[in-house]
Amino acid sequence: MDQLLYGAAYYDEYMPYERLDKDISMMKKAGINVIRIAESTWSTEEPEEGVFDFSYVTKVLDACEKEGIYVIVGTPTYAIPAWMAKAYPEVMVTDRSGRRPYGARQIMDITHPAYRFFAERIIRRLMEAVKGYRCVIGFQLDNETKHFGTSSENVQQMFVRYIRKKYDGDLERFNHDFGLAYWSNRINSWEEFPSVTGTINGSLGCEFEKFQRQLVTDFLKRQAEIVGEYKREDQFITHNFDFEWKGYSHGVQPDVDHFKAAEAVTIAGCDIYHPTQDLLTGKEIAFGGDLIRSLKKDNYLLIETEAQGFPEWTPYEGQLRLQAFSHLASGADSVMYWHWHSIHNACETYWKGLLSHDLEENAVYREACCIGRQFRELSPSLVHLKKENKTAIMVSNEALSALKWFPFPADGGNTVNYNDVVRWIYDALYEMNIECDFVSTDEKELERYDMLFVPALYSAPEECLQRIKDYAARGGCVLATFKTAFTDEHVKVWSDVQPHLLKECFGITYNQFTVPFNVGLTGDSYQIPEEERKARLFMELLENGDAQVISGYNHYAWKAYAAVTRKEFGKGLCIYMGCMTSPAYLKALLTEIWQEKGWWTWKQEIHFPLIIREGRNCSGNRVTYYLNYSRELQECGSGHKGRELFSGREVDKGERLQVQPWNLLIVEEG
Amino acid sequence: MDQLLYGAAYYDEYMPYERLDKDISMMKKAGINVIRIAESTWSTEEPEEGVFDFSYVTKVLDACEKEGIYVIVGTPTYAIPAWMAKAYPEVMVTDRSGRRPYGARQIMDITHPAYRFFAERIIRRLMEAVKGYRCVIGFQLDNETKHFGTSSENVQQMFVRYIRKKYDGDLERFNHDFGLAYWSNRINSWEEFPSVTGTINGSLGCEFEKFQRQLVTDFLKRQAEIVGEYKREDQFITHNFDFEWKGYSHGVQPDVDHFKAAEAVTIAGCDIYHPTQDLLTGKEIAFGGDLIRSLKKDNYLLIETEAQGFPEWTPYEGQLRLQAFSHLASGADSVMYWHWHSIHNACETYWKGLLSHDLEENAVYREACCIGRQFRELSPSLVHLKKENKTAIMVSNEALSALKWFPFPADGGNTVNYNDVVRWIYDALYEMNIECDFVSTDEKELERYDMLFVPALYSAPEECLQRIKDYAARGGCVLATFKTAFTDEHVKVWSDVQPHLLKECFGITYNQFTVPFNVGLTGDSYQIPEEERKARLFMELLENGDAQVISGYNHYAWKAYAAVTRKEFGKGLCIYMGCMTSPAYLKALLTEIWQEKGWWTWKQEIHFPLIIREGRNCSGNRVTYYLNYSRELQECGSGHKGRELFSGREVDKGERLQVQPWNLLIVEEG
Amino acid sequence: MDQLLYGAAYYDEYMPYERLDKDISMMKKAGINVIRIAESTWSTEEPEEGVFDFSYVTKVLDACEKEGIYVIVGTPTYAIPAWMAKAYPEVMVTDRSGRRPYGARQIMDITHPAYRFFAERIIRRLMEAVKGYRCVIGFQLDNETKHFGTSSENVQQMFVRYIRKKYDGDLERFNHDFGLAYWSNRINSWEEFPSVTGTINGSLGCEFEKFQRQLVTDFLKRQAEIVGEYKREDQFITHNFDFEWKGYSHGVQPDVDHFKAAEAVTIAGCDIYHPTQDLLTGKEIAFGGDLIRSLKKDNYLLIETEAQGFPEWTPYEGQLRLQAFSHLASGADSVMYWHWHSIHNACETYWKGLLSHDLEENAVYREACCIGRQFRELSPSLVHLKKENKTAIMVSNEALSALKWFPFPADGGNTVNYNDVVRWIYDALYEMNIECDFVSTDEKELERYDMLFVPALYSAPEECLQRIKDYAARGGCVLATFKTAFTDEHVKVWSDVQPHLLKECFGITYNQFTVPFNVGLTGDSYQIPEEERKARLFMELLENGDAQVISGYNHYAWKAYAAVTRKEFGKGLCIYMGCMTSPAYLKALLTEIWQEKGWWTWKQEIHFPLIIREGRNCSGNRVTYYLNYSRELQECGSGHKGRELFSGREVDKGERLQVQPWNLLIVEEG
Repeated sequence: MDQLLYGAAYYDEYMPYERLDKDISMMKKAGINVIRIAESTWSTEEPEEGVFDFSYVTKVLDACEKEGIYVIVGTPTYAIPAWMAKAYPEVMVTDRSGRRPYGARQIMDITHPAYRFFAERIIRRLMEAVKGYRCVIGFQLDNETKHFGTSSENVQQMFVRYIRKKYDGDLERFNHDFGLAYWSNRINSWEEFPSVTGTINGSLGCEFEKFQRQLVTDFLKRQAEIVGEYKREDQFITHNFDFEWKGYSHGVQPDVDHFKAAEAVTIAGCDIYHPTQDLLTGKEIAFGGDLIRSLKKDNYLLIETEAQGFPEWTPYEGQLRLQAFSHLASGADSVMYWHWHSIHNACETYWKGLLSHDLEENAVYREACCIGRQFRELSPSLVHLKKENKTAIMVSNEALSALKWFPFPADGGNTVNYNDVVRWIYDALYEMNIECDFVSTDEKELERYDMLFVPALYSAPEECLQRIKDYAARGGCVLATFKTAFTDEHVKVWSDVQPHLLKECFGITYNQFTVPFNVGLTGDSYQIPEEERKARLFMELLENGDAQVISGYNHYAWKAYAAVTRKEFGKGLCIYMGCMTSPAYLKALLTEIWQEKGWWTWKQEIHFPLIIREGRNCSGNRVTYYLNYSRELQECGSGHKGRELFSGREVDKGERLQVQPWNLLIVEEG
Repeated sequence: MDQLLYGAAYYDEYMPYERLDKDISMMKKAGINVIRIAESTWSTEEPEEGVFDFSYVTKVLDACEKEGIYVIVGTPTYAIPAWMAKAYPEVMVTDRSGRRPYGARQIMDITHPAYRFFAERIIRRLMEAVKGYRCVIGFQLDNETKHFGTSSENVQQMFVRYIRKKYDGDLERFNHDFGLAYWSNRINSWEEFPSVTGTINGSLGCEFEKFQRQLVTDFLKRQAEIVGEYKREDQFITHNFDFEWKGYSHGVQPDVDHFKAAEAVTIAGCDIYHPTQDLLTGKEIAFGGDLIRSLKKDNYLLIETEAQGFPEWTPYEGQLRLQAFSHLASGADSVMYWHWHSIHNACETYWKGLLSHDLEENAVYREACCIGRQFRELSPSLVHLKKENKTAIMVSNEALSALKWFPFPADGGNTVNYNDVVRWIYDALYEMNIECDFVSTDEKELERYDMLFVPALYSAPEECLQRIKDYAARGGCVLATFKTAFTDEHVKVWSDVQPHLLKECFGITYNQFTVPFNVGLTGDSYQIPEEERKARLFMELLENGDAQVISGYNHYAWKAYAAVTRKEFGKGLCIYMGCMTSPAYLKALLTEIWQEKGWWTWKQEIHFPLIIREGRNCSGNRVTYYLNYSRELQECGSGHKGRELFSGREVDKGERLQVQPWNLLIVEEG
Repeated sequence: MDQLLYGAAYYDEYMPYERLDKDISMMKKAGINVIRIAESTWSTEEPEEGVFDFSYVTKVLDACEKEGIYVIVGTPTYAIPAWMAKAYPEVMVTDRSGRRPYGARQIMDITHPAYRFFAERIIRRLMEAVKGYRCVIGFQLDNETKHFGTSSENVQQMFVRYIRKKYDGDLERFNHDFGLAYWSNRINSWEEFPSVTGTINGSLGCEFEKFQRQLVTDFLKRQAEIVGEYKREDQFITHNFDFEWKGYSHGVQPDVDHFKAAEAVTIAGCDIYHPTQDLLTGKEIAFGGDLIRSLKKDNYLLIETEAQGFPEWTPYEGQLRLQAFSHLASGADSVMYWHWHSIHNACETYWKGLLSHDLEENAVYREACCIGRQFRELSPSLVHLKKENKTAIMVSNEALSALKWFPFPADGGNTVNYNDVVRWIYDALYEMNIECDFVSTDEKELERYDMLFVPALYSAPEECLQRIKDYAARGGCVLATFKTAFTDEHVKVWSDVQPHLLKECFGITYNQFTVPFNVGLTGDSYQIPEEERKARLFMELLENGDAQVISGYNHYAWKAYAAVTRKEFGKGLCIYMGCMTSPAYLKALLTEIWQEKGWWTWKQEIHFPLIIREGRNCSGNRVTYYLNYSRELQECGSGHKGRELFSGREVDKGERLQVQPWNLLIVEEG
């Protein structure tokens, strides 16, 4: 699609009365040019086992075909009909708590043959029903697919087969690699392999979670195969990936390996939900977008985001528009709301759509009309924005899982997980207007980046560590944090000095660590207040080899140890942070590096809440977004000469730009 | 009974040694004229299946007959014997967590035929055993009956039959009314109706809870039928209703529809437990009493309240007496303690009775002796106190259930439920000395009241809303709060503009709402401090039609919207509160209305902690209670000329009265 | 063993590569002369049902035999192999939550015949495998044995047999003693005895817990019998008892009756884990040591303690050595770490040993080398330290259980249990340098003590109370607290005036109690600040008979009651505390008693953080430890003339001693 898509999920099935024409007309008024349908409505499409009725689907497609609205068709498989659960109760997922009762969506066993049989059949029937429609531009596989904790007997047996294959039948090596002798967990024969439901061995537990993530990838790939048998060349396949949920989209998704699962689709897609009102920062929009864009190193679809959402997210005036353009600034080619109308049914009633329950125009809808118009007008300049970021963050589902098994101590009463460490890094970059990509631990082309961040890479195979080391030797700049390179891919601690393999490049070692209580950070080169100079969360007692100590620990018992170090290694620079710090400390450190390396630009002179995001459009022109995430007017000099797109006004480089509260400017260079 | 009853629950079965004569003698000294027996002692009455032994019952009845103490006999059905659970384990309730193990009381399946068989038999045997006794003045059915979450297969099938009958077999209408298409929950045939145990559809969930409440009503009505076959004309049937429990009796009981269940009895009864010491306010006593009195619009029995209760409730000197008369001031015809003696057994050991574990006189007992004497002396003036309240609060189990499924956001970390909204209204009235009744959503005679409060009536049938509207049109004053008239009786949101049907009378509409963060209330007519002028809990963004705005929102993003409005409608006045407020704001608002309407009397000149409660006694004389819920002396002018009953002193209207700490005066007019 | 033992648990099975020689060599360098092996490694020793392989054990024993390192061999029974759970799933424990899944250690049913069969067989095979080794000095039975909540049907039937035997078949007496009539829990015939899993009767619940503790004792005694068939005369049998866990070793173990279970062993042993860094106080070391020493009234083995432990316990410099000698100061004859090396496997990875995961020397290991050398040098003076304490604290599993069923109200939001009351007493004594023993409620020789503390002895048989009373009459000093003598051994409240039987000796009675809210303590003889003079936790409203009131309650409603009293009774002195107080108040009270009684010595002139611990060594010389639990230098006068052992320097009585931060001195008299 060579145009920006602006749209919403649309469920004619849930409407309280016949409204299709009225809705289409209101959509067109709002500039909406795409809707997503069919997802989650299996019981309407197959009300009785083997009886199909796609009239709700074709009715909407007929209207869209006529009115020129694009449609993404979702397979309905993530919510199963009541008849299936009643007749085949074994399709309900069995997790650690037992077999789940029917009711909620997303609680079936995605591996169960009965479920897979019915899922394949409904997909094929749906594909046949929609195949003639030109308006259908693509398909969404399932929705926010997970493994739902499936761990029933059939899954246990699949896991044993998986391990047996992985170890080529060598039980001794498996026992050793997984440390099963501990507490007598040794397994002597494959048939004695117990259910891992009750395991307290983190190696086994993490491997099982990895296996469960593979089930998700397999599931999506199989759906892609089926859909692929029907789809036209010009139709895409996508999936709606989501993120670790912390009341909003927060971090790397624990239950899905996004990098692997994205192989199933032709274009990556996701949903991003985030706080608004005074808490709107753009961070979740940028984080989620940067991550999803990195999956296929290309533009992506923003398939769902809130219009009104939860009551506490009702947007202030201007915020809906600021949010929409923020997604584009990350490389999204679409902004789609979940959902068009607010649900009258007593499920997700308070996750409000563009229309409220009265289905009339309202303040948010009126703002959407403005967005739709601007999307249409500016589409040629804004679609397919390409990034050339020189900074990357390495993320890992394996590290995340392992740090769930071996969690950080609570930090002043707060639970801190892997994603909080990732976000500590990401958010500092974001606030400094340093854009970044994400890379997986399989990434082979690290050289594309000037700087690589490695937060808490607790569990990783040696090859990955070697690649990081080689990258540094060849000129890369690496910043790794505490807990990196501590265990192998089986979550067994390396038995040499920490950090394994990387001690040479970082120039430090440690064999003790503790938890900071009132421990400061020494070194006064950073002009930050005392309360921002504290070691946080975890502290490794670094013994300096040939590194340069940036900070030590300000505590009578730990004063001999280093906290943050740097070392020139090969052609590169390696920074190690033995503890978490305040954002202010981290930003001061990054400032020093950026300045030293000559990476410091006009963008770093500006900082949050005025956010700069850039890329090149299809014409090769640089497009610069100036996004104001605050209720105050913000000012800065323009980074480039060009044309401000909303006003059409030419701006000179350095010319003062005024960005209104909860508003933005876009300057296209050239 | 034409006299005040003063009494206690008495369990001879639990006494550590033979004490009946001693207990009767101590009771008589204390002025106790009634005891409740037999409730919960099934295993003593039927130690073995089919073997009966009522000697503990008849022994006590013989003594009471002789000594002139009245007896209320309770059916023992709420605690089943061990033999029943062992032989028929299926009588144990199955709730969402599975089948409950034997041990606690109140965990059988009240619908199970085996349980119902044994329950009917023990009731009949007990009734036969006690039928000759003149001292038996009435019967209590079971005790604090609930449905205990019963949701086993047999209950699921009853529920399907209930729905099928309600919908006359029309599944499509059922699917539509309950919005079951959502997430593929559609039901295509009655035999595929899944257990609703796992449902996340609030319509279905709330209907199931309503059905469960009906099970309670049915259970009590059946017990009443059985007891009715045996009881004499002069004997009453009552039940010990209780309240939502929040560490004490707090609000409308979620699991019982009191208005419907009260049809089973000839006189309503209840238990009220409440904090004492510095936390004694009289609010729970008044709230519970006003509610239970409203069930049958008549006097009621206070069947249980604490003597000493929990350790933290050990009363200060004077409090036991103040509490006892407070119950009478609400229209109770009895005050009965749970219980006579403190339990030596290792169950409820710390829920202490009138006697401590040493079974000797103690400070509390000595105060009871004073109460008993005064009850006896003042009975002719105090019994059968009748109220003629002009204010009512409409309460609804359906709204309560629905707001449990769709809870309010936490308010500054605190969970706030339906009852907290009800109590916010009730407590303000209480503190202003405005007495009120409660009405159900079925109430047809709203015209009896000058003013009707409608707190958070989230789910209600259209007829109820129409009655409210008609009431206002004909001259009633209505104050409704946020979340009223949002969904129909199936908890489906009305698809027209909110508030459904009532927008005309309130003169406002809204289609957006949010949660207040530092949102003030504008309008400075009320002289209350800034910190009391905050929007709380939830805020609807009211768009004013033809109402008068009392307060708007003081927040830059929401300043266009109204918060609290009023409109003259027909002959009435309609006030709408789009958000919760501080008690001070609410009381200022009520003050304005009361003064404007001419309802303001001398009682509103006085306020908490000096509480005025009134009614007319059997002689038609007005009786006025002056209750001091504080440790300081309180003074006020007498509202009427009359006789102060404790002192026998004549008082003039307006004469200064001094009410001692934790004490009271009663003035009988005439 | 006539020498101090210094050692660690050693698991060759868990080593990432062959290291035995290296480890032995590093041990010898560190002065380690004993290791514990074999415990928990069943799956290595019996990899397949009936197939045995003790090569890991004998390999280590061969090396120790050669290198002169002692070995304690542990039976491996507390972690069962996977094959057992797979083939005999019924060996997994069934507790209240159902049958536990395989995975964790310590979740089998210790009563199950299949488990007992395999356990006996592996013990016998192991004993045979190790019998020839001289280096084996003793055996540890299982490890931290508990009942793991076992409550399956077989255990229920054992419990019924246990009750039937105890009551000689007299069900009526049982029903009466346990108050089962309450809520119809009466049991009419033995076959109707329901599972007590669901009971809410505290008498039954506590008796079941007592029965479960007996299962532990029986289990250990049976293991002792088996081991006894093989062991040499010179070999000891011990067990690794542990304590109530509150993130560290905190109090009396709820699930084991230490006094009874200790009959199974020839020398008591235990593990003690405790906070370090700024939170190192020595209290847990002293408490645990004093308790375990009291079990057999003799020296004991400290079988496990942390080297590095949790990350937050990484010791400051000096702390490891201070801790090691602190154990000796309580009468330990060994200090053994759990464990030698840190686990690389993903289980207990962060419970670090002496060596970190790199298996190299580190700061902690280097400190251990110093400790090992000093242990060896000073062994003749320090081994077998004997105490002659004149103070004792009575502790009771039964009181602990009962106060779990009837918990204290939360104290300012904090949960307070029986052990917190015990520790309130113990810690005050500790801080005053008053050493004490512990006694059980079966103790017959109370006369050995000048002073007996009886904290919260909520449930106790009358004989025990009588012994306390007799002890006082004959000259003992007793201090008992609130909740003492409230219920009998069946947790039924005594039906006479509280405190039962003891009212005569304490001279007070009460029949009311409450919870203190802002209640002060009167009486200004103690010069402590107002905020330290508060009633806490619980308050009995004491009515004074012929006692002397030390403090009353400072509250307008409770001012008539006494809070703390004393009475000369017979030849003794009886103090009663009706409420909990601040430590400062308690210490002021104890100071008064100690001074009045002439027990006040130079040791009480010193106080925490400088702790004095004393005893007599094998030569009959008094040995005095001066332990500085702080980061500041501490000074005091020497209590005796003698030789300071580390420096070899002679000191005079009264000579100023300087104790360095986190350091100690030891003076041997003579």
